[in-house]
Formats: sequence, C-alpha cells, structure tokens
Amino acid sequence: VADVQEIIRAANRFAVPLWPISRGENLGYGGARSFRDASLILDLSRLNRIIEVNVPDAFCLVEPGVSFLQMFDYLERHDLPLWLSVPGYGAGSIIGNALERGVSSSPYGDHAAQICGLELILGDGELVRTGMGAMPHSGMWQRQQATIGPRYDEIFLQSNYGVVTKMGLWLMRAPEASAAIEIEIAERDSLGAVIECLAALKRLGVIQDSPAIASYLTSAALCSAKSDWMTGKGALDQNAETLLLRTLGLGWWNVKVRLYGLPDMVSLCLRQVEQELARLPGCSFHISRWQKGAPISSAHRGVPSIDGAGNVRWLGENGAHIDFSVAIPVSGAEALKHARWMIRELAACGLDYHSAFYLRDRHILNVVQLIFDQADEEMCQTVDVLYRRLINDVAMRGYGINRSPLDYRADVAATFSFGGNAIGNLAQRLKRALDPGSILSPGKDGLS
Amino acid sequence: VADVQEIIRAANRFAVPLWPISRGENLGYGGARSFRDASLILDLSRLNRIIEVNVPDAFCLVEPGVSFLQMFDYLERHDLPLWLSVPGYGAGSIIGNALERGVSSSPYGDHAAQICGLELILGDGELVRTGMGAMPHSGMWQRQQATIGPRYDEIFLQSNYGVVTKMGLWLMRAPEASAAIEIEIAERDSLGAVIECLAALKRLGVIQDSPAIASYLTSAALCSAKSDWMTGKGALDQNAETLLLRTLGLGWWNVKVRLYGLPDMVSLCLRQVEQELARLPGCSFHISRWQKGAPISSAHRGVPSIDGAGNVRWLGENGAHIDFSVAIPVSGAEALKHARWMIRELAACGLDYHSAFYLRDRHILNVVQLIFDQADEEMCQTVDVLYRRLINDVAMRGYGINRSPLDYRADVAATFSFGGNAIGNLAQRLKRALDPGSILSPGKDGLS
Repeated sequence: VADVQEIIRAANRFAVPLWPISRGENLGYGGARSFRDASLILDLSRLNRIIEVNVPDAFCLVEPGVSFLQMFDYLERHDLPLWLSVPGYGAGSIIGNALERGVSSSPYGDHAAQICGLELILGDGELVRTGMGAMPHSGMWQRQQATIGPRYDEIFLQSNYGVVTKMGLWLMRAPEASAAIEIEIAERDSLGAVIECLAALKRLGVIQDSPAIASYLTSAALCSAKSDWMTGKGALDQNAETLLLRTLGLGWWNVKVRLYGLPDMVSLCLRQVEQELARLPGCSFHISRWQKGAPISSAHRGVPSIDGAGNVRWLGENGAHIDFSVAIPVSGAEALKHARWMIRELAACGLDYHSAFYLRDRHILNVVQLIFDQADEEMCQTVDVLYRRLINDVAMRGYGINRSPLDYRADVAATFSFGGNAIGNLAQRLKRALDPGSILSPGKDGLS
Repeated sequence: VADVQEIIRAANRFAVPLWPISRGENLGYGGARSFRDASLILDLSRLNRIIEVNVPDAFCLVEPGVSFLQMFDYLERHDLPLWLSVPGYGAGSIIGNALERGVSSSPYGDHAAQICGLELILGDGELVRTGMGAMPHSGMWQRQQATIGPRYDEIFLQSNYGVVTKMGLWLMRAPEASAAIEIEIAERDSLGAVIECLAALKRLGVIQDSPAIASYLTSAALCSAKSDWMTGKGALDQNAETLLLRTLGLGWWNVKVRLYGLPDMVSLCLRQVEQELARLPGCSFHISRWQKGAPISSAHRGVPSIDGAGNVRWLGENGAHIDFSVAIPVSGAEALKHARWMIRELAACGLDYHSAFYLRDRHILNVVQLIFDQADEEMCQTVDVLYRRLINDVAMRGYGINRSPLDYRADVAATFSFGGNAIGNLAQRLKRALDPGSILSPGKDGLS
C-alpha cells in the first residue's frame, strides 16, 4: 500500500496519468485497456492477499488481486460454509468486479451492494479507510455499512477518484438445503409470461435469487460456433435456429432458479414454483436437490470458471464482444418489447442475440453481448454505430444504463442531462476535490 | 424547489448560514436545533407532497415534509398493500429519518438502505437528481439504485453537503400472512442466550426482521413514572425493579419477532422459532397470527404513533433524553458484557437503563436512551460528562458509533482517527466542493 501511495505521488510530481487495474479482466467493458494511450497501467494484481474470511458473520477482506477462482479455492481448501457469488468470468478480481458493478443471479449477486468498508488512496496519495475502518480499534469495519456521517464507499464505484487497496465484502452463508430448477421455455414470445410468473414468486418471497432468463445463444455459443449451423453472412436465420434448438435440446429461453433454506422451507417453496411453472406454455423443467453434508455441484451454487469467456468463439478465433447493460421495469410486456426490439436492431447489423434478463426486486437488468469479428473492419464500424444509437434509444425509452465500455462513457454521460448535466458537474467537483492533479484514469467517467 | 434554491443563493450572497430541517423531529439527536445560534432554520415541513406511491414495485417518492403518520394515512385511505417501516416517533419526516439513519425492526428497518434516488440542492444552489433521476426520461429513478459511475445518494446521509427536496424510498410489500411472537425473558443475564438463539434463526433465514430486544423500562416508561416505583435519587433500586416487573407483568427483556410470507411458510418458520424459544431459560411467549383479508393490528405491522416520545415523562414534566447508538458484534457474550457495563455506568450517574438491541445480519445496534431531568442542572452536567466518556470507551472497545447528538459530533469525529483523521479530511474536501460558501449546517459534521 505504501508503494502504491509512492507511485501515485510520483505520478503527480511528473504529471503522468495512471490507469489502475485490479486484474484487468473487465471483459466486455474495457478489460485492462486505458482510455488514453499516454497513461501508465498501474497493475495491482500482485496485491493478492485474502486478509480475512469470517464465517459466522459471512464476510471477507481482500486485496485487488484476489480473483473469484482464488477465493473459491480458499473456501474449498478450508471447508468453509460460505458461498461465493460468481460472475460469468472467474479469473477477474473480486474488488474490480464489485467496483464495476458486476452481477450474478445469486441473492448476493448485486456485488456493489455487498461492499462493506474500503481502504483506498486518493489521487494525491492520501490513504483513507471508509466506514468503521476509520476507527483505529474497530472490530466493525466489515460488519456495519452504516457509519456516522456520509457513507463514501459507493462514490468509488466505476469512478476515478481513488485506488482501492482493500475491500470488505459480504458473502452468502451456505444454506441447510437448496433446490435447483432448470427451466426451458420453447417459444421466444413466452418471455413476458415467464417474467410475470417469476416476478410474482419473487414478490411472495419464494425466490430470493435474481434468476437469469437467458436466450439460447448464451448456452449454444459455449459449445458450438455459428459456422456449425449456418454459412454466409447475417444473423442466424430461422432454419439454423430450429436446427440448433433441436440438436442441442435447448429452450429459446433457459432459466436456472435456486431455492435456499431449511429442507422443509425449500420443499414448500419448490411446490409453489412447480405449481406456477406448470401454467406456463411450452415450459419444461428439471429439479435437483441438495442438502448439507451431500456432495455439491455447480447446479446449486456458483463455481467460478473461465469457460464463460469462450462464447466469443461463436464467430471463430477473432470473436470479441462488448456488452450492453440496461435496466428496464419489472414487466413481462416491457421485457418482450425490449427483446423484440433488440433482436431486430442486432439482426439489421448481422448480429445474433446473446442476452440474459436478471430479474431483480424492482427492475430487470438486461445484458446483451454484442459478439463481433474484430478482424472484420466493416462489422466493427457497424457495431460502433449501433452501440451509440442503442444508448440514445434506451435513454428515450426511459430505461436505465448502468455499465458501458470506456469508448461510450461520454455518450452515456450525455444522456444523464437533467439540470444542465448537473450529475456530471457533481462528478467533476468530486474529481477536483479527490484527485486535484487528475492523475487517476482520466477520461474513465466520460468527463475529466 | 425553486424557492429553496433562491433562499440558498441569497444565503450565499449575505453569508448567512442555513440550518435545513425536514420536520425537525430528530428526537434524541438534536431535534430542530441548529448547532450555531447564528444560523437561520430552513424549515421544509411545508414541502409535504406524496408525489408517487407505486404498488407493484413498492416504492414512494416524497418531499421532506411528509411524516410517517401522513404516509400511513395515505396507504390506509387508498387501501394499498404496502407496509411502512415505522420508527419510534411517527410525527417525524420520512426523508429526515432516512437521512439521519433512523431504524426499525422491520425487514425494511435500515431506512438509509432503502433510499433510491434523490433530488437535492447543493450549497451553492445547484439542483441535482441522483441515480436514474439524472436521465430526464427515466422510468427507473425509484427502481434502480445502481447508476453508471459513482452512486452519490449516501454522501448526503447525516451530512451538510446539500438540501434534499425529493427522495425515493423502497417500501415493504404486504405479505400474504404473518405471525407476531411477543417474548418475555425473566432474567437480565439471559440476554446472551436470547441473542444467540435469535441470531441462529436469522442465519437460517427463518427471521427476516431485525428484532429489538428491549429492556423492561422501554415499556414501563410509557405507562408509568419512576416516582410510581421509588422515591429519592439514584437509579431504580432492586426493590423497585422487582415491584415494577411484577406489577406490569413484564420480562426484564421483551422482544417482538414477526414472520412474513405465505401462510404455510409462516407456519413452518413459527414452528422453528417455537422450538428454539422453548430451550431458553425463563422465556415465555405469546403468538398471534394474521392472514391477508383479516383486520390487522399493530402487532403485525408498524403503525406510526407519537406515544413513543412520552417515555421522557419517566422523570416527570422536565424529562428529556439523548440517545446513545452503537453497533457491536453479533455475540451473546459481547451483548451481555455491553449491557452490564452500560447499566453500571448509567447507575453510577443515577440514570436508568432504557435500552434496545436491534439484531441485524452482521451486527447488533444498541440504542440506549439517557433520560434525564433537564431542570436538574447537576444531572445535565453529569450526563454531558458521561456521554463524552461513553464515546471514547466504546471506541476503545472496538464498537462502531453511527449516530450522535450534535454537541458530541466533534467527540465522535475524533475517534475516527485512522491515517491522521483521513476520513475527516475527505469530508472536508467534499464540503468545500459541494458547499463552497459553507452555508449549510456549519458544524453539523463536527468539522466545518
């Protein structure tokens, strides 16, 4: 930490911008790339200590280099009854992922919301501990988000105000039992009915997960390439789609719902879910149960893996992706409208629909991966134009954008225009106050 | 809102500090009082519109003058299936309470955590909407806490950076059924066992509440005065305590636990709770159940009231209180140690122990009301000295302070000393950036 402080002070002295990365694996949103070529990458991946894991209170304190794979290993090796919320790509940093608002479908899948206390270095080298970490003798740093006075943790999300060197993060306690329900929905246009069904179960408190309703391509792209199903340009056509669905035995939408609790509670909730699913047209499902003491598989809890990144090979060795992440209201009709619109927009550019809807309490987060051939210059150009248009269109539709690749942060910022871009001015005031030399990740927030 | 902006601009022009209050009912922590006598009180209580209440997504958008009583009335009048999390005093502002980290034992009882989007005016008059409110057409302002870039909502908690004019707040959906278990614990020293029992049930997911384990005086002071039980000075003695407990039929500790969900789920959870409580020494309990459609009482959901403030009459017409709020680890032994210590410290000053432990997921919040006779100058002096000492002692014990009356904010700030008071420096940087004229509530954060 003292070394990082020294580097930041030196960067200020020589006016050299720094681009801090945890492990540089923010795939789909920029990776390790800096926004300006003149920046030095400040690679924190060797700060990789797991400082504490507490079982009764279910939290950890980690450094930026700790990956999901490393933490999972640690929990396994010590046989600790804590479950990790795991995003699509397991080699990434736990800290980096939480700061960049990574998600999973677990009850702890809003990773930023699990942050409890930071240690960080401001742009001029000042070391700060937030929350109860500011009390030198405190035993509460990772136990209590509420401090006295303002809580600062969340201004360091997706920001360029400081370099986080330690983070407290809440983990899920292993339940006594769980059930995993793997659901297939045959028809594309049943999306609305699925959403309404699962949303009702969430409102009743039956489902604690934020289940992901994923288009068939999110599975198909992991085990096959587009060229297996179709030759020529353009989006996957109807024949290819039919062949693929039949061959791989997938639903158009595929959902995994997990239930947690005491065995009897899980049984009761499972009965509710089964009842509701039975009413859905074209729906089939498979149930597996688990109970404490039994061997456990990835059906029941998140297991980090690097396989998820393989889906770019859908377009061969030059496949790449940028992700479009937007929140929409909890409404089946709205979700179906959004899906149809996105499918049409992507198809018009020759792109396929790799999409997942994460159903949360008060909104649905839709993440669409735009997979393109990076060797195909025309396609790159098309994707670029499309992405900018999508930003403006969803803003007009009243949806909420919460992540974007670096190159589009300025476009997104322009849609946050209330009060003459008041939020941008607020961001700039804080930037000047916390990083007066504008040394940290200039351009990252689309402003400074 | 435009008027408030104009007032703030005028205050800047004439360098007159403003002390904004929502309804000025932050009882126990300062009320409507300004820290410096030279401030003008900016009373926002006439901004009292309930702008929106949304049932499916369970949120409201309100102005600072809206009280818990007003919102409860609104929900009743429109027969809306939303339950309000209600603090001890119902005449206070919903916004003021959330900003000052008010609590209840409901699953939505961490009020600050339910904030979703603010409209506010910075110290120089700039109007800002945070979160999705910054997107002019957004339908997501109250639905989605996660924005793009930093989330600013929580820097306006207990701060003096801006004046909040609108707040989105998440509400609890009325469940299908509930059960209320009213528990009495005979012996003071059973506190540890009660905490361990309820904490285990919380970890299993049986209890979603943060139940309050309250000392007998929190009930007794609402229906009787100290003089009914004892004459003379000093803390309540053993004889008076025994007489009071027998006469009023109270446990030394009294707990209310509520369960929510589908009727079958509530039954299952209730069975678990009953089983565990049966093992507790000196524990008796009473159960009442409710189901949708049946008339509902305050046993099952919070009903705002102004009666709670009456407990100061424990010491007659000149009774007053300041509250001491501190987070401790989830440990029965630690809670009992803390209770014994506080009882001893208070008794040494002639004060009684009005105390509640709110059991949360990863910490316990203990709120002790120091009720004193404000006409008794010696007692006031004693309480003042005691309060300052308590702050330093709990800091040394490693506990976390999260609220304090105005006069003690500087003492608390001094215990947040990591890195040469780095968190205080951070607070000051933001103060200069967001309220350059230092017009808003100077002194409120113990710094500026």
